[in-house]
Amino acid sequence: MRAVDIITKKRDGGSLTTDEIHFFIEGFTRGDIPDYQVAAWSMAVLLQGMDARETSDLTMALAQSGDQLDLSDVVDVALDKHSTGGVGDKTTLVVAPIVSACGVPVGKMSGGGLGFTGGTLDKMESIPGYDINLDTRGFKRQLAEIGIVLSGPTAVLAPADGKLYALRDVTGTVPSIPLIASSVMSKKIAGGADAIVLDVKVGLGAFMQDLDDGEELARLMVEIGVHAERQVIALLSDMNQPLGVAVGNALEVKEAVNTLHGGGPGDFREHSLVFASNMLLLSGRFEDFPQARAAAEGALEDGSALKKFIQLVDAQGGDVSVLEDLSKLPSAPVKVELTAGTSGYIHQIHAREVGLTAMELGAGRAKKGDAIDHAVGIEVLHNVGDEVEAGDAIAVIHARSEEQAQQAVRRLEAAHGIKNESIEPLALFYGTIGRD
Amino acid sequence: MRAVDIITKKRDGGSLTTDEIHFFIEGFTRGDIPDYQVAAWSMAVLLQGMDARETSDLTMALAQSGDQLDLSDVVDVALDKHSTGGVGDKTTLVVAPIVSACGVPVGKMSGGGLGFTGGTLDKMESIPGYDINLDTRGFKRQLAEIGIVLSGPTAVLAPADGKLYALRDVTGTVPSIPLIASSVMSKKIAGGADAIVLDVKVGLGAFMQDLDDGEELARLMVEIGVHAERQVIALLSDMNQPLGVAVGNALEVKEAVNTLHGGGPGDFREHSLVFASNMLLLSGRFEDFPQARAAAEGALEDGSALKKFIQLVDAQGGDVSVLEDLSKLPSAPVKVELTAGTSGYIHQIHAREVGLTAMELGAGRAKKGDAIDHAVGIEVLHNVGDEVEAGDAIAVIHARSEEQAQQAVRRLEAAHGIKNESIEPLALFYGTIGRD
Repeated sequence: MRAVDIITKKRDGGSLTTDEIHFFIEGFTRGDIPDYQVAAWSMAVLLQGMDARETSDLTMALAQSGDQLDLSDVVDVALDKHSTGGVGDKTTLVVAPIVSACGVPVGKMSGGGLGFTGGTLDKMESIPGYDINLDTRGFKRQLAEIGIVLSGPTAVLAPADGKLYALRDVTGTVPSIPLIASSVMSKKIAGGADAIVLDVKVGLGAFMQDLDDGEELARLMVEIGVHAERQVIALLSDMNQPLGVAVGNALEVKEAVNTLHGGGPGDFREHSLVFASNMLLLSGRFEDFPQARAAAEGALEDGSALKKFIQLVDAQGGDVSVLEDLSKLPSAPVKVELTAGTSGYIHQIHAREVGLTAMELGAGRAKKGDAIDHAVGIEVLHNVGDEVEAGDAIAVIHARSEEQAQQAVRRLEAAHGIKNESIEPLALFYGTIGRD
Repeated sequence: MRAVDIITKKRDGGSLTTDEIHFFIEGFTRGDIPDYQVAAWSMAVLLQGMDARETSDLTMALAQSGDQLDLSDVVDVALDKHSTGGVGDKTTLVVAPIVSACGVPVGKMSGGGLGFTGGTLDKMESIPGYDINLDTRGFKRQLAEIGIVLSGPTAVLAPADGKLYALRDVTGTVPSIPLIASSVMSKKIAGGADAIVLDVKVGLGAFMQDLDDGEELARLMVEIGVHAERQVIALLSDMNQPLGVAVGNALEVKEAVNTLHGGGPGDFREHSLVFASNMLLLSGRFEDFPQARAAAEGALEDGSALKKFIQLVDAQGGDVSVLEDLSKLPSAPVKVELTAGTSGYIHQIHAREVGLTAMELGAGRAKKGDAIDHAVGIEVLHNVGDEVEAGDAIAVIHARSEEQAQQAVRRLEAAHGIKNESIEPLALFYGTIGRD
């Protein structure tokens, strides 16, 4: 078998065999197949596509390129969730405690955030002392003892995926649905997940701007799950406007805690409940979706989800006192309000622009290794469809300096579209794939 | 400007600007843009295409990546020819002397042959003492003095093309018409050619197996000529069966000398006259094609072309006595005849198979740096359309050993298709592009 023949076959629109895909990825992992061949292959895959069987084979080859965790000694069903990345997406901080409070253990490993969407671990690190660097033994022990973990990877999961992604990033081969699907799923499978709820974001602030593309990605990941004998549900959710109010690490922790207290923005609360319910359904401990949903709502209402979150922070060395007094979370010295320049209805709050503004304030990383300012961020006070009067506050900027705040005001103002005609609120979800 | 944006633009079917193409090729030449980015770009170009303007820009960027010769101090019009490579193609050995004998100087630089089609210089090196390593000064002096040179490159011509070709070879990105066209034309332009006659071979033994592809390549190279202000004529010629009788270096020199003597196979003689006439036409010294053709025929008939060839060999240190006594050329110890197994009409003499058989005998290089056996080769005694009787000799194998000869017999037998029904001879040419 020769790498160049595999490239040529894909270039000409052929379907690669399981053996060819494993040969190629194993050669790449070992360094026998050089970057330039993998780059040409990636471009051929992007332009010629891969079917579900090929994508599943690629997923397994990537998953098998490093360590493969097995959590069956500590949980009946290893549950996981994954979001393709959104602005203001602090869902895991609420969903994991709800699910765990319902008696279903959730041990989740996340990667670091990059670009205009923040990472779950960056948010958790707003809490002084919170340790994201667990080892596999510690991870399993905590999962067994308190039924909740939010940590970085405890092992080398799918290193070929990391290597491939780095190459795709510089060769214009990121936006390939089969390559995205296999990248996401390979890490989940290597991490030992038996059942996965996927949040495929669609809209201006998402990687997938088009609903058809989002659906294709969601269907493909569900199919990979079938091939790999994992249960997978994919939800298509809106990412035209930010999720909830808070964008920025400490601000998002605050919003998550408020939501666990029974408050929080309505859209974010509902989003979290839907994800928690789907995870509970996949656990096999609930008869149907309504029963799972009732349990999730109960865990918010009776405070057990909040208690679970406090337990989580405590177990991983975080300062739980900040959860009782949220003013002890990092906060920015400069707060500036953006007010509506005109009266009317909000037609657009461009999620990507909001995300990029938050990144410029210091809330996110432009490139790997950049430091993060946990205190800064944006509160987006409205949703598309809301009516506002000229002069109403529509956003609050939390900045390190007056100058940065003013820059953010200008960018955020342009990100808001206000018109005379009324407009319907945006849907929260556009569909569910993989649930009977 | 960033390489990844240029790749992305081409990936999405965009047309690259002149600046983008120069930035990309210059970065690649300097080593600033790594192989993996160029590999992904090449695959995007192969699958998305490039228009004539882009291809011309690429050609110029490649041409400008190294030395650029200027022959205007020694010739009025720097004439060149190029063949995309064929089996038994010793055309230059006859065409250059004809054109030069008609008073039009021809200084030609060739690369080494690779694969199943031999290189012009490999053939010339069958002549003991013949030196292909001229420097630019020597090249120009000889061109001025005797009006004919056949040499290797005297300078570093289009090094980016060499680097790009090596990368394309291992990334499945060779068969892109714009990439092939720019590769050919960049070397000709860097070599200082003002006027170029191109031989685009089409058929079983050619890179282009399909006439439409051949036409597309020919048109594109003519258009590059227009953009670069060079005169270009492209002829589409047959390469389903070998050209002439001889395949193999010394055998081909012998055939070329016989042709210069007024003999030689009819197809090869006609092919050479057509190329010589087109070159003479491009020189601007003849009123029309018939006049140019008459001059070319005259140079064969009056012996002046042969005299010019002898002058060439002498000037470059070759032993001219072998041209007077061709038995002094290298000859192989084993000669075996292949005879027709059945009576009928020859429907196919698979040029590629004949070329590969000759390569296996030692006449060609499987990879760069392989040694060549100048003595071995094949005489293909018939053309498609000929009637043969069972037992008639249809080929003669010149081999180093009996074993190799027998292997060649088997392969060559399979390369010949003989059927009961008669069949028309193959055309020599399928069209001319770029001549008024």
